[in-house]
Amino acid sequence: MNDARDQGLVLDPKYDAAGLVTAVVTDANTGELLMVAHMNAEALAATRESGKATFWSRSRGALWVKGETSGHVLTVREMRIDCDQDAIWIIADPAGPACHTGARSCFYRRIGPDGLERVD
Amino acid sequence: MNDARDQGLVLDPKYDAAGLVTAVVTDANTGELLMVAHMNAEALAATRESGKATFWSRSRGALWVKGETSGHVLTVREMRIDCDQDAIWIIADPAGPACHTGARSCFYRRIGPDGLERVD
Repeated sequence: MNDARDQGLVLDPKYDAAGLVTAVVTDANTGELLMVAHMNAEALAATRESGKATFWSRSRGALWVKGETSGHVLTVREMRIDCDQDAIWIIADPAGPACHTGARSCFYRRIGPDGLERVD
Repeated sequence: MNDARDQGLVLDPKYDAAGLVTAVVTDANTGELLMVAHMNAEALAATRESGKATFWSRSRGALWVKGETSGHVLTVREMRIDCDQDAIWIIADPAGPACHTGARSCFYRRIGPDGLERVD
């Protein structure tokens, strides 16, 4: 266990082999989990600079300002980092549905005993 | 976009090259984000079977029943999956601190303009 990373107050993200950390976004108003994405150092810096949640799109291999085309930006109210600094929690005000399907949250299906059930 | 995976009601997790999906745990009582970990198919099956959050420990290369040694188990109240089925949301009742540091949540530090700040 790296005590400096775990207990210290220096931001030192533990990027994986692909240069990424996990980013988890919750709604500042409802507490609901909205989405999970990834950030590289550039995305993290852009998010801190702009106050708009910015990720690294693994599928497109490009920086991705969430809501850039849809207008459904996520305005960051607070960011936290976990003990081993490989996951970031973004508490945000969403300007619209967070999911590309139009759902408020990407987590619109419950895992039931016999499969998935829609919850919204 | 895979419509069946996105819109359907069949549980079909999109495991990564290492056979893992991201698992995000929130506190069923407070809504707080407690931890982020990973699950393989075996961990997901064990969680559904036992009702206790079970992960795959990448560092130990072994199945990891959260709280197995500390007693701080996470009793699953509900599980959801996201649009592309590569992230799972576990809403749980924690029996104690979720973090190995003894903190209630692993996300005990805010990212401030000049570094990290403890929030608990």
